[in-house]
Amino acid sequence: MSDSIKQLTGRIRSFAAARDWEQFHNPKDMAVAIAAEAGELMQHFVWQQPDQVETRAADHREEIASEIADVGILLFEMADLLGMNLGEVMEAKIARNEERYPVSKAKGNNLKYNEL
Amino acid sequence: MSDSIKQLTGRIRSFAAARDWEQFHNPKDMAVAIAAEAGELMQHFVWQQPDQVETRAADHREEIASEIADVGILLFEMADLLGMNLGEVMEAKIARNEERYPVSKAKGNNLKYNEL
Amino acid sequence: MSDSIKQLTGRIRSFAAARDWEQFHNPKDMAVAIAAEAGELMQHFVWQQPDQVETRAADHREEIASEIADVGILLFEMADLLGMNLGEVMEAKIARNEERYPVSKAKGNNLKYNEL
Amino acid sequence: MSDSIKQLTGRIRSFAAARDWEQFHNPKDMAVAIAAEAGELMQHFVWQQPDQVETRAADHREEIASEIADVGILLFEMADLLGMNLGEVMEAKIARNEERYPVSKAKGNNLKYNEL
Repeated sequence: MSDSIKQLTGRIRSFAAARDWEQFHNPKDMAVAIAAEAGELMQHFVWQQPDQVETRAADHREEIASEIADVGILLFEMADLLGMNLGEVMEAKIARNEERYPVSKAKGNNLKYNEL
Repeated sequence: MSDSIKQLTGRIRSFAAARDWEQFHNPKDMAVAIAAEAGELMQHFVWQQPDQVETRAADHREEIASEIADVGILLFEMADLLGMNLGEVMEAKIARNEERYPVSKAKGNNLKYNEL
Repeated sequence: MSDSIKQLTGRIRSFAAARDWEQFHNPKDMAVAIAAEAGELMQHFVWQQPDQVETRAADHREEIASEIADVGILLFEMADLLGMNLGEVMEAKIARNEERYPVSKAKGNNLKYNEL
Repeated sequence: MSDSIKQLTGRIRSFAAARDWEQFHNPKDMAVAIAAEAGELMQHFVWQQPDQVETRAADHREEIASEIADVGILLFEMADLLGMNLGEVMEAKIARNEERYPVSKAKGNNLKYNEL
């Protein structure tokens, strides 16, 4: 059940509706909240050296999962608020990335599409 | 099809694998990329006044959808990289939020759970 | 004394040197740390409505000052690391903004320079 | 002249006043703008490997300087808006960091003060 974006979105919508929180959920404040939660997720890795990152991720696994969930909940909610189908929007972007980053050019390097 | 987190995650994984990009996809760099994309999403609303936000969201709809997709793609990928089931992680967090924010206390206000 | 960017930068540099922290202070990790601290600063205002912002700023004054200081310390340090004179770089940008945002066009509106 | 925080702050204040921009400069929108600009600064380093960071910083020097200036201008402005003396606030935080990170414990490691 938890694999369906629509069902999860429905549950998130009910959660907010039961608390009369729609009044706070305008697109700007959603975007601000997403960025703030993404900052908390990143906070776990600040100053971490490459050889420390895996241990860090393992040691903070619960908190990291919780931050990932926070970003996800807000993202599903923002797409819903804007009347966007998140799955479709993501598929469209993946298709665009497949054009922007053809395997022949992008393989093995981390250049931006406009630098390829 | 695009409603399944697992199927979308599988497609994202194939996209990265075809380009040998797993070498760049450690947890730290994923978190950094998510925060950077969340910043781009937020950028559309900087300085916007409450009465301008809806128009802004409508006028920039395509770009905003694209940024939302970017955050979503990276978030699905990071959960996958860490061996987390994103749907389950989100459901667990929603359940925790239901405890932290009981309707009786949280209704109609925007206080943090530790301020309720 | 605390008004001089150079003197503050010197003190920040000594602080890091005494702890052998230069090894961690590459431009990428500095930028990541600045974004993470800016996220913490913003965190104080998430979901706050316009009529709540001033009270919030007053009630959290000490923590906000501390977050502002964190961003400032890292920013001074990053400029120093890159061999940039922060004061000059800021003055140059103010001058550029004066060109981009002529008073006659920018007065009283919050459009981006490329929308003016 | 460009070394004085107060003088730079005065110039930034005049810039905003001449454009009637004080109406947009509440603490929340300042914090949001700072986080958005910090995100742009970080954007230059997304996915960059440790051995690519210095070259990246050199190749994008002008844009990075411009982003650093943007963060600095907004930070000076936010401190000013809140009636804080940025230099003093930074000095106070450096002093606190000296207590939190004693050389004997912090030397050569990147642990947080609460992990030391």
